This record gives sequence, structure tokens and C-alpha cells, in this order.
Amino acid sequence: MNNFQTNLTQLKSGMVALVGVPSDENSSFLRGPAQAPGQIRRVLHSGSDNLCAENGHDLGREPRLLDVGDLPLGPGTWQADGAPIITQHIANLLDREARVLSLGGDHAVTFPIVQAFAAKYPDLTILHIDAHSDLYEEFEGSRVSHACPFARIMEAGLAKQLVQVGIRTLNAHQKAQAEKFGVEIIHMTDWQPGMALNLAGPLYLSLDLDGLDPAFAPGVSHHEPGGLTTREVIDLIQAIDVPLVGADIVELNPVRDLVGMTTAVAAKLLKEIAAKML
Amino acid sequence: MNNFQTNLTQLKSGMVALVGVPSDENSSFLRGPAQAPGQIRRVLHSGSDNLCAENGHDLGREPRLLDVGDLPLGPGTWQADGAPIITQHIANLLDREARVLSLGGDHAVTFPIVQAFAAKYPDLTILHIDAHSDLYEEFEGSRVSHACPFARIMEAGLAKQLVQVGIRTLNAHQKAQAEKFGVEIIHMTDWQPGMALNLAGPLYLSLDLDGLDPAFAPGVSHHEPGGLTTREVIDLIQAIDVPLVGADIVELNPVRDLVGMTTAVAAKLLKEIAAKML
Amino acid sequence: MNNFQTNLTQLKSGMVALVGVPSDENSSFLRGPAQAPGQIRRVLHSGSDNLCAENGHDLGREPRLLDVGDLPLGPGTWQADGAPIITQHIANLLDREARVLSLGGDHAVTFPIVQAFAAKYPDLTILHIDAHSDLYEEFEGSRVSHACPFARIMEAGLAKQLVQVGIRTLNAHQKAQAEKFGVEIIHMTDWQPGMALNLAGPLYLSLDLDGLDPAFAPGVSHHEPGGLTTREVIDLIQAIDVPLVGADIVELNPVRDLVGMTTAVAAKLLKEIAAKML
Amino acid sequence: MNNFQTNLTQLKSGMVALVGVPSDENSSFLRGPAQAPGQIRRVLHSGSDNLCAENGHDLGREPRLLDVGDLPLGPGTWQADGAPIITQHIANLLDREARVLSLGGDHAVTFPIVQAFAAKYPDLTILHIDAHSDLYEEFEGSRVSHACPFARIMEAGLAKQLVQVGIRTLNAHQKAQAEKFGVEIIHMTDWQPGMALNLAGPLYLSLDLDGLDPAFAPGVSHHEPGGLTTREVIDLIQAIDVPLVGADIVELNPVRDLVGMTTAVAAKLLKEIAAKML
Amino acid sequence: MNNFQTNLTQLKSGMVALVGVPSDENSSFLRGPAQAPGQIRRVLHSGSDNLCAENGHDLGREPRLLDVGDLPLGPGTWQADGAPIITQHIANLLDREARVLSLGGDHAVTFPIVQAFAAKYPDLTILHIDAHSDLYEEFEGSRVSHACPFARIMEAGLAKQLVQVGIRTLNAHQKAQAEKFGVEIIHMTDWQPGMALNLAGPLYLSLDLDGLDPAFAPGVSHHEPGGLTTREVIDLIQAIDVPLVGADIVELNPVRDLVGMTTAVAAKLLKEIAAKML
Amino acid sequence: MNNFQTNLTQLKSGMVALVGVPSDENSSFLRGPAQAPGQIRRVLHSGSDNLCAENGHDLGREPRLLDVGDLPLGPGTWQADGAPIITQHIANLLDREARVLSLGGDHAVTFPIVQAFAAKYPDLTILHIDAHSDLYEEFEGSRVSHACPFARIMEAGLAKQLVQVGIRTLNAHQKAQAEKFGVEIIHMTDWQPGMALNLAGPLYLSLDLDGLDPAFAPGVSHHEPGGLTTREVIDLIQAIDVPLVGADIVELNPVRDLVGMTTAVAAKLLKEIAAKML
Repeated sequence: MNNFQTNLTQLKSGMVALVGVPSDENSSFLRGPAQAPGQIRRVLHSGSDNLCAENGHDLGREPRLLDVGDLPLGPGTWQADGAPIITQHIANLLDREARVLSLGGDHAVTFPIVQAFAAKYPDLTILHIDAHSDLYEEFEGSRVSHACPFARIMEAGLAKQLVQVGIRTLNAHQKAQAEKFGVEIIHMTDWQPGMALNLAGPLYLSLDLDGLDPAFAPGVSHHEPGGLTTREVIDLIQAIDVPLVGADIVELNPVRDLVGMTTAVAAKLLKEIAAKML
Repeated sequence: MNNFQTNLTQLKSGMVALVGVPSDENSSFLRGPAQAPGQIRRVLHSGSDNLCAENGHDLGREPRLLDVGDLPLGPGTWQADGAPIITQHIANLLDREARVLSLGGDHAVTFPIVQAFAAKYPDLTILHIDAHSDLYEEFEGSRVSHACPFARIMEAGLAKQLVQVGIRTLNAHQKAQAEKFGVEIIHMTDWQPGMALNLAGPLYLSLDLDGLDPAFAPGVSHHEPGGLTTREVIDLIQAIDVPLVGADIVELNPVRDLVGMTTAVAAKLLKEIAAKML
Repeated sequence: MNNFQTNLTQLKSGMVALVGVPSDENSSFLRGPAQAPGQIRRVLHSGSDNLCAENGHDLGREPRLLDVGDLPLGPGTWQADGAPIITQHIANLLDREARVLSLGGDHAVTFPIVQAFAAKYPDLTILHIDAHSDLYEEFEGSRVSHACPFARIMEAGLAKQLVQVGIRTLNAHQKAQAEKFGVEIIHMTDWQPGMALNLAGPLYLSLDLDGLDPAFAPGVSHHEPGGLTTREVIDLIQAIDVPLVGADIVELNPVRDLVGMTTAVAAKLLKEIAAKML
Repeated sequence: MNNFQTNLTQLKSGMVALVGVPSDENSSFLRGPAQAPGQIRRVLHSGSDNLCAENGHDLGREPRLLDVGDLPLGPGTWQADGAPIITQHIANLLDREARVLSLGGDHAVTFPIVQAFAAKYPDLTILHIDAHSDLYEEFEGSRVSHACPFARIMEAGLAKQLVQVGIRTLNAHQKAQAEKFGVEIIHMTDWQPGMALNLAGPLYLSLDLDGLDPAFAPGVSHHEPGGLTTREVIDLIQAIDVPLVGADIVELNPVRDLVGMTTAVAAKLLKEIAAKML
Repeated sequence: MNNFQTNLTQLKSGMVALVGVPSDENSSFLRGPAQAPGQIRRVLHSGSDNLCAENGHDLGREPRLLDVGDLPLGPGTWQADGAPIITQHIANLLDREARVLSLGGDHAVTFPIVQAFAAKYPDLTILHIDAHSDLYEEFEGSRVSHACPFARIMEAGLAKQLVQVGIRTLNAHQKAQAEKFGVEIIHMTDWQPGMALNLAGPLYLSLDLDGLDPAFAPGVSHHEPGGLTTREVIDLIQAIDVPLVGADIVELNPVRDLVGMTTAVAAKLLKEIAAKML
Repeated sequence: MNNFQTNLTQLKSGMVALVGVPSDENSSFLRGPAQAPGQIRRVLHSGSDNLCAENGHDLGREPRLLDVGDLPLGPGTWQADGAPIITQHIANLLDREARVLSLGGDHAVTFPIVQAFAAKYPDLTILHIDAHSDLYEEFEGSRVSHACPFARIMEAGLAKQLVQVGIRTLNAHQKAQAEKFGVEIIHMTDWQPGMALNLAGPLYLSLDLDGLDPAFAPGVSHHEPGGLTTREVIDLIQAIDVPLVGADIVELNPVRDLVGMTTAVAAKLLKEIAAKML
């Protein structure tokens, strides 16, 4: 019943494609994020709230926003060095001159997605909001673990600049990796609400929900207390002043989201990101 | 077993009446708030904490605070244009020269309550803390929906001034309504902790718990992330420097309050509001 | 299967002993904290996250940090005026010239623990983070209730200075006790992030998790909204600039910690405290 | 994004249509069942289990089973005496000579659905599994409340025979109604596993999940302990030996289904019912 | 605000008094049952269901059933050998020739309650439904622990006959106690649904909710799997054919009753017991 | 801090070794079972209940039962065709002439465990309690998935007889596999409480907790309603009359076990199995 290929034909230049990437087999601790795209859509369309972003942009009446459905992924999607099927699907969306907002999945999906973006945008900047730097050379025997995507991205030269916000667990290996790749890290201990980030464009935003404090986003696989508030993340998004050409929202784990609060956070951030992309 | 009429006779001039309004049939998405008054009382009297407000005022030993119980409401309470039974009961409390602090119920109850207040206080100011402006002309076919009370209040001229704090979802219709009625809205994107509000008195405070961020108050029917902290709401209450003649605490949904945290927030805010009223 | 005595022999001068104190029979409202030490260890060793503190100190590779297990406590541990078995066990750890970080239990354990510390450090300063002052002369007939430890500590002259942060429920009796004992209280209404505390050393930190707002730590027996954020507590710990010779983390109630978020907060704060002690 | 009209065109004679009826505005206590159809589909397609019924029939490979999506319902669907839009949509499905399995919604939906069935099948028998008889003449002022559908059905002569199983709360009014309409009630106190029911065909099965004991189906609005086991309900379905032309599964309330167990029960029973219909 | 003394005056001969006993300080593992009486009342009066017992007796319209409120208990209620305040209050109810149905509290309350019953009924039989025999001579240093009430009752000769159903954890000490006191135990391994019990009257029923399997009653402090179903307990109650003069429902722990299912079980059993008493 | 090697030296002939196998990387839908061994131990030693089996055997005082801790497993444990490290560890336990009761992990662990047993017991019978037959030739690209262990066991001729109880989802592939390997399946539709199984000895019991109905064991990754009661599984264990030389309890998922009920079921069954082994 997946209508991805059918929906794709309606995507036109200048539109924003909303796409689900239901993949969590590269998670090291808990599975669950593969269920996230469906849950976020359910909240968006539950009638619990309207579809307005905070700037008044009513996404429910915006013809340029198209939900193309979930990528049709099955066994064999992932290989030792990436997921070429995901890369190809995202490339198809970009070929139609659309911007792409993907709903994960775990953070492993960012590497094959950014492979597609880098081919389109050679001078990409990435803003990465997360509790963890995800810079492991390999993790528990895998180079495509959800702990590794930014090592893969940087070693392949897919981004001109990588800025990380929310980081609060950096061991010696990750610190060495960050230095090797020239990653700009704003540690939580140094974070001040309202800090200005120097971001060049075009920009890709990779938003791991565990960058927020677990008080605001308990429905994630890894609880790392001491993080950002939802309002601080909204402010970061609203302050973006370069073209936002792509984004992902990853690591929502519905299994841990007992009353749906974290899914509501994902839906709220989706609205703010989409409003900024349009 | 409802003792409302009996308790009423003990209410004297200068006292504060605590009253439950167990009504949620005007909620659009989830029911549950009708169970809130009983749950808040249970937490207040659980022995989990003492009954002191933060200014040291011990409400447990305050003879001027009287819990008159729940309004005796049944089928037929609500009509297409209001709930005259609720209005009459509140008017009876006000006739005894008492101040009134009501525990909702959903937000629909504020309209019939304020009808009673407006008859007593012709120059009422309302401070409205909420994620939503609740200014819909009508919602899903109803003019007394919990999405409409402030449209009803303003079109009837029941308040001289309406100030809204915490708002973070305003669509075009609500924006037009706000302009039409001269509502002063402080959007969350513009909110700064410690902001001074210019409030004339006498003041009525309408506190929808979804004005708080769902991290602080997950037990509500509508999760709208990016809101106020509990401390910011306490600060708003403690900063009130005009006579606070009435207040409501609405939209607590015990069905979603798995470990009782949001009920504890309601009980805490009740103590701060009552201490300010006395 | 308790290996406490065996482990003890590995403790050397200059090390930090991590020790569980599984005792909750002095709790007035809910039991549960006796299960906390095991749950915190489970999260620490779950592989969900690494064992690095935010300053990069990798506790997983730190030979000076030794988990000596749980104190072997049974019926009869508590007497009307203390728990000499706990005091003796802690004294044995201190005799080996180690610093001690204990995982509660409820807050009653702090009194017998501090008895051991006072014998070793006659000029102890205590930093106490909590929603409540715990200064009751007696509570519900008990002088060793979890509402009383700091009355016992101060009347016995076990601390030179007691500074309390996070307090937001002080009734007349507690206020009188605070004045009598010269306790320095920073009420939440007066709290500002980044406030400097004037602490003399050597320092003992007593951290009741309900000092945090229940949004950040819902898994406690007493929900007192309006408290500290996890980041503010981390900042308080990282700002300590005197020798931190002992600490306890108390009142985690796993029964209320449905998805493990509060246990993760306890584990996070354990890492920051241990890194400061080493 | 509702594809109901499009999907409808694929429905052929001899097929079984699966259709969602997301309506819960006639619920007296809690809302939530409107979210049920989407949640049941999510579990069915989660990959958690295969789509085989217990008789080995693999529904995932069955071309005669067509999910036509959710009925497009909005404000105004319900009128004082029914929901003609629902009746019309179901009639359209039946006109294509299909059997229809609907996912509620609360129990109010059964009345407009059965109106369509009665027009097609003049000698309909209804097997009704429920804790409650739902025979109220009116409830809290409404004649289309979820407490009333079988009063409406029987007074309109829409069924030749009504057999109720699982009933365990019959007050005097309902008892009088049952006698007036000739309802055959098998009370839980009289129930024996394996009891044979004398059902004439064609048969319509109306399955309220609160007919099961809340141990098996906690995710419903009304907990009425002492009910059927899931296995007993499966046995009832598998024992049907007359043509099963229609069925509904109603009153799943995802708000109360914290770990998804009740949704799994709904999905399991859906498979057994569909296999019996094919 | 406790109206116990006032309500008492309305109690007449031949009536059934419903009374709350909010006491849980004798629980060995978790507290919480003190909150049970209020929660059961909330469910009874929530409007979720009617107040009919399964025999059609409508308790909502039964003038002989009087809820006298909660016993006013405070610190000092419990002494080393009992709780004379509880005994006295229950004796006052019995003096008015009423039958008494009490809502616990933990199981410790049964001893002081039965002391009052034994004075009134010298030839009392007790039917005790529980996972545990609660026959400990003492437990963790206490003789009034919730693990001891039936040792106290039998050694004082307060019952002529004690029949226990549901037992599934009997160690050597408890086995010796059972033999010493002539307790008739029906172990779960020997239990058959529909077994007849030879009970002489007058009868007192002590119902510990952990006698049910935790699938049916998860909201208890001690989960002992392999127990009775709710239907089996209802059948036991409905089969009583001697005068049922008193009963208690104990060990409901609302802290563990996330969606209220166990409270609903307690309310259901309350209705069946009250209908049998009237 | 893993003491497995140390503990091993205490294992003597005729003893029963309790061992944790914390492995869940072969789960297809959710992770979590790797946390199960620690959680089961926590419940066993929580003091919530005594350690008696239902036959009165007090395991807390049984010197022949030894908890040897968790197998020290890390990345690389699993290879495409098994987990030789697990097999070797279990073989070491068996070499000491002990019986072995392992706590999973997911069901993938049964294959390497049974490899060790088959080397010791050439004529092994396996009793397999489960909702699923786990006979997939391969699943989502893996031959060691938790959906495959009994295909591996039977094709390698590791068991003389395989009897499966509780099965309620058999597709065509699994049915063909069952016929090919001569598996004796008792489907839930054919199950009767008290059925006798013809089991030859020596016996290995593999107990997947999802064989129980999710009402009794909600804390599993795959909810398959319509299963066994806890009492029925206890009866199956108690009825074993051949030597029980080994057993595993697998697929407990603490992530879904909100109030610990399923962990209590695992601990209960552990006691019954251990008592049968001794």
C-alpha cells in the first residue's frame, strides 16, 4: 500500500518534499525509530492542533508542501558502506528541484541522505543538533552504525562546514575525530540561549531529538540529560538566515513515548523547519 | 454525596472559595478534564507535601480559604450559547463577597464563569495563560467549544482588557479575531522571562495548563511544545500587583498524567494563586 | 551474593568509592528509593552511553573509581536516633583515605553518613540541593524520617556551614529551624542561573533529586514543581572549587520512573560528581 | 491525503473491504477511539508479526482483501437521529457486492453502519460482543450516544435476531429494553467457554473490545472487569458457521494503550474475522 | 474536611457502611495503598459505568448503602500490638447494627478491624483471598506488618474458621503457622474454578487484590503471577450463601495502576460484595 | 565488574547454574531483551517476595543453586552461522556436570546454547513454549535471527524430538519446515488446559515469554494475543516427569514492562523451573 512512486510524480520544482525513512536496524541499544514517520504523521493529522507554524504560515493550505510517503525499504537496504537505495531515492527527489525534509529512522540514515545532497550542493554546510557527535570511526563492528554518520560524511568530504550544537558526551576518540575533520562543536557547557551561529549556505539541518533534554523529548533511545529546551531549538531554526535546502528529524522512538509528547515535539519542529524551507 | 449547597452557607465575605467545575463535554480531541478537580484535591490532601505557598502562607491553617466542593452539574448544563447553571452558581459565590478560584474542566467553562464575574466587576481585566488564543468564532459546529471562550467573552464586552501569554499557534482566523477584539498577545517567540505586564485591576486569571511546555505539564489534551516553564508561570502569579478577584485552572487531563506530575503542577499553582488572592 | 566486604579490600588511599545505600523505610509517602542503587548501576553499564564526564574524563577507564557494591543492610538497621551500621560502614571507607559517593536510598541516609564524615572532617561544609529543607524536628512521630536529617546534623554540630539550594516549600516550623541553625537558604524564587555560592571546604554535597523540577526528574516520591533544570545542577557541580570529599544522590524512586529518564539523570549527575571528586 | 474515493474503485464483487470509521464524538466518558483505525493499521504493517490468520490464511497475499482507507468524515457527520454520511458510504461498499469490516470509532458508528446492512440484508442476525448492552433509549440527552446503538437498531427493525455475549452491567432500564426488543443476552455469570450460539445467517458481528476483560484489553474507555479472554473471543469467531457478511471492531482507545497491547488484540481479531469472511 | 463523624450519625441498623481506611505504613516493599480509598470512590462516581451489581441491584439508588467517608487517622495510629483507634471506629459502626465494607489500606488493617468484628461475632468465619498467607509471626521486626495480620487474628482466637484461597507462596515458617492455627489453605496448584467452599457463618471476607493474577490486578505492591481471574473472584463472592457481615478490599496500589484498570477491578468487586451484604 | 569466570569455579557436579545471556542484536523488531537478566535478578532479590517455589522448596537456602552471573559477551559474539563463544561457555558449565538455566536475551541464543547441550546429551528432547515456531530458514537476510533458532537446531540434528506449545501464527513456509523436521506442534486452537505431553528425557525447556498471552506478559517485543495463562505454563512445568537438564527463559523486554509485571512472571517461572531441575 506504499504510494511513494505515485506521489513522486506530483513533486515539482520549488516544492518541499516530506518523506519518511523507516529504518532503525543500525541502532545500538533500542529499536523503534522505524515507527516514527507514521506516528508523526498521525499526530500532524489528528486534529489535535492546526498546521500553522509560529510565523502564521498555514502548512495545511500550502500546495508547495507534498508528503510523498515513506521510502520503500526492505531487507538488503543497508550494506557495509552505506545504503545506496536511500541515496538514490533522495537524489530523485532533489532532481525535481525540490527541497527535502525527511523523517527518520535512526541517525544512520543521514549519511546516505547527505550523499545525495552533496552531489547536488557541493558547498553544503551542515547544522547538527544532537547530544552526541556521532563521529565514531566504527561502533560495535559497524561503520554505518547510528554512532558513525558524521565520520562517514566528513571523511568523504560531503560537507564544507559541520557545526554541532547540544553535544554533551565527547570521549577521547570522538574529540580526536572532531579535530581531524575540523568540526565546530558548541558544547552544552558553553551554550548560551540566543548564541549566533555563523552558518554559510546552502544549509542542511540534521536534528537528532536527543539533542533536546529528555525532559522535553523522553521518547528517544538514548537519554542524555542536560540538553536543549524545545524553545531553544525552535529559536535556532527560526534564526536560520541562509537557504535551508534539506533537513532530517531522527531518533524519535515511539516505544518510549508513552503519552505522545515527544511525537508532538517532532511534529512541532517539522512545522517550523518546513516553514523555513518554503 | 455532593455537599456543594451545604458548604456554600459557610462562605463569608472576604473569603476565597475553591470550587470544582467537572465539565469536559466541549473538548474537541480528548475527554478527561472533568476528572481534574477530584485529582487535584487528592494531591493537595495526600500528605505528599505541606500546604504552604512560597511566601510562607500556610493554606492548611487559613480559615478564609473554603473548599465548597464541585458544582452539581448534569446533562443539560450546556446550551448552544452558554451554561447558565454554571454562571448562576458562580454568581451566588460572588454575591457572598468572596473571591473564587475554580478548578476545571476544560476551557469552555471560562465563558459562563466570566459572565458572572463581569456582572460583579464591570471593568475586569483578564490575564490568559495558554498555548492557544481560544478565539474561534465557532469550532466544529459549536460556539461553546473549548476553542471559543474568549471570542464569546470579548464579543459580549465582558472584559475591559485581555492579555494573553504563552500563545504559539495563531492561524489567520484567530489573528483577525485578536485584532477585532483588541487582544494583547505576547507570543512565545517574543516572550522573555521576567517581562512586565501592564495589568489594570480587578484581575481575573485564566490558566490553561497547556500554556506550560508539555515537559512540565504532559497531562493535557493538546501538547503544544515550546511553552512556559512552571517557574515562569509562578513568577507571573507572584508578580501580580492588582487585586486578583477570580481565577480558573483548566485543561488538566488526568488520563494522560501517568505518574501524577501534572496534577502536582496544578496543585502548586493553586497554592500560589490562592495565596495571592488572600 | 553481596560482595561489599570483598570489594572493600581493594579500596586504596586517594580513590573514590561508589557505594549503594538501599534504605527507604523512613519515607513518609512512597517507598521505592531502596531500589535506586541497582537501577542506576544498570543504566551506567547498559551500553546506552559512554562513561565520560563532560570534561572528557572517562570514568570507565579510571582505576581510582571503585564500585564497592551495596551496604549489607537488613531489619534493625534503623534505631530511634540513627543507623549506626551505616555510619560504621562509611567510616570504614573513609578510614582508607577514600572519598565516598553514595547512591541512596531516601534522604534519611544522609544523617548517619554525615556522622561518619564529621568525625573525619571537623570543619565540613554541606551543599544541599533539594525542594525541601528537611529540617523537621520530628515528622509523623519519627526523628529519623527523611524529613529530618538536617535537623539532626545541625543540632549535633556536624557541619560548620549548611547551604541549601532549590528550596520551595518552607513552613513556619522549618523557617524557625533554619534560623536557629543558621542555615543559608537560597529559595527558588530568588534563584538565578549562574549564582555564585560561597562555599568553604572540605565540601559534602547532598543531592536530593526532587531539587530538580519534576519535568526533569519525575521519578521521585514528592513532586514539587518549579525547581532546577538538570543543566543548572550540572553547572552547580562543575563550579565547585573546593575539595569535594563526599556526596550522596538520594530519593530516586524507580517505581515512578516509567521510561528510565530520572535514572539517567541520576547516572549523569553521578558522572559529573565523580569527575569533580577525582 | 485521504484516498477513500480512489481506493473504492478497486473494490470488486466477492471482496472484503477494510474501512476505518474515525468517529468518537458520541463517547460519554473519554475520547480517543477516532485514532484507532490508524493505530491498528500501523500494528498490522509494523513487521512485528506476519499477516496469517490461525487457519493459515495469509492475508498479506490475499488479493480479495482491500483496505479502502478511512471514511472522509468531518463536522456535521452526526445528526440527532443518525449519521447519513456513514450509512451512504457503507451502502456504496455493499453495492459493489463486497463484505465490509470496519474499524471504529466508538460504538455509536454501528447504528449508521447497520442501517446500510439492513437495506441489503433484510434478515440480518447480529452477534454483539460487549460488556454493555448499549440499549439505552437515550443517554445524557443523546439518542446517538455510544450507549444507544442497539436501541436504535432494534426499534427500527434492522435485525431479525440480536444475540449479546459478555454482558455484565444491566440495570433495570436496559433489562426492560432487552425484553421489549427480544434480545438474547448471555450474561457473563452464565457464560461457559465453548457454549454454542444458535445464529441464523447472514450474520453481522459487532465487537466492542470492552467485551474482553480489561486484563486482555486495557486500552478501552470503560473498564468493566470480569469479561471474556482473547482466546474465548477467537473461539467465538472461529465457530461461526453462517455467512459473515459484515463486522465492526469498536471502542479501542489508543490513549489508554500504553504499550500497544490492546491494539495488537484488535489487529489479531481483525485477522480472524477477515479470514472468516473470505 | 473529613466528614466521618458527621456521616456516622446517618448510619442505621440494617445498613451497609462503606468506609475508607487510608493506612499503608506497615507495608514492607512499596507504599501507596493509603491512596486507594479515594481512587476507588473516584472511579465509582466517575460516570464511567453505572452502579449496578451483576444481579441487577442498583447501588446508586440503594438507601441502605452509606459511604461514611475515611477514618480520620494520623501519626500514632499504629502501636506495636495493633491500632486501637481503627478497632474503636469499626466497633462504633458495628454498634449501630450495620455491616461494614472497608477499603484499605494495606493488609495490616485487617487485624484491628477483625478485633472489632470478633467482639460482635464470637463465631466468625473468615474467607481470605490472597497470594500470601500473611501468617508471619513477625516480619522485618514488626508484629503488625502487612505480612502478619492472620497470625495475630488466629493467636488471639478471633476467628472460628479461616479459609484461604489463592495462596501460591508458602515457605516452611508459614506452613508451620498454618498447621498450628488449623488454617484451611486451598493452594493455587489445587484450585479448580467452581470449587465449593464449606463456610459457616457469619462470614467476614478479606480480599487482598494480589490474590488475583497480576494480569488482572497489576496495581498492587507485590506481583505474584499465577493467580485467580477476576471472574473467579466474582464467582466466589456470588456463591457465598451465609450472612456476609463484614469485608475489606486491601492492597490496591494506585502508584502502579497506570490506566486505572486495577482500581476498576476494586470498584467492581466492591459492588458485588455490597450487593451480597444487602 | 563481571565475575563470571570467578563464580564458575564454585560450580560443582549436581548443581544448577543460573546464567545470564545478555544478547539481543538478532531481534527483528525491538531491542531490549539484553537488559532482561539484570532485571530478573533485581526482582528476585528485591525482597518483594520470598524465594520459595510452589512445592515449598526454598531456593534462597538451596546451596546447589548458583548464580554464575552474565556471560561476558561483546561485539563479535555473533557470526553468520552461530555464536561459538556462547556455545563454549555453556559447554564449560555442562562439563562440570551441572544443569543450566539461562536468562535471555532474545530467542537467537537458544541455538548456540543447544549446540552445547546436544554434545552432552545426544538424545535430547526439547519442549518449546512460544507463540511462534521460530522455524524460518532465514529471516530478513539472517540465519541466526531470533526467528530461526529451531530451524538451525533441527537441520543440525541437535534434538531427537521437538514439541511446541502455544503456537498461534504459522504461515506456509513455517508449516513446511515443521513437516520437514517432524516437529510436533500443539496449536493454541487445539490446546486444552491439563493436556498431557509425551516427552522423553533428558529434557531441555525453551520458554519464550510471548508464548503467554500478552495480558500476562505484556513486556515482550512481539504481542501475539490468544496465548497461555501463567498458571497453564506453571502447570506444564510442574507436570514434567523426565530429567530437566537445561532451560532458557527468553524474550523478556523490560522496555515494555512498565510496572515490572512481566519481569515478575519471568522470576516466578524461574523459581518453578529451578525447583524442577534440583
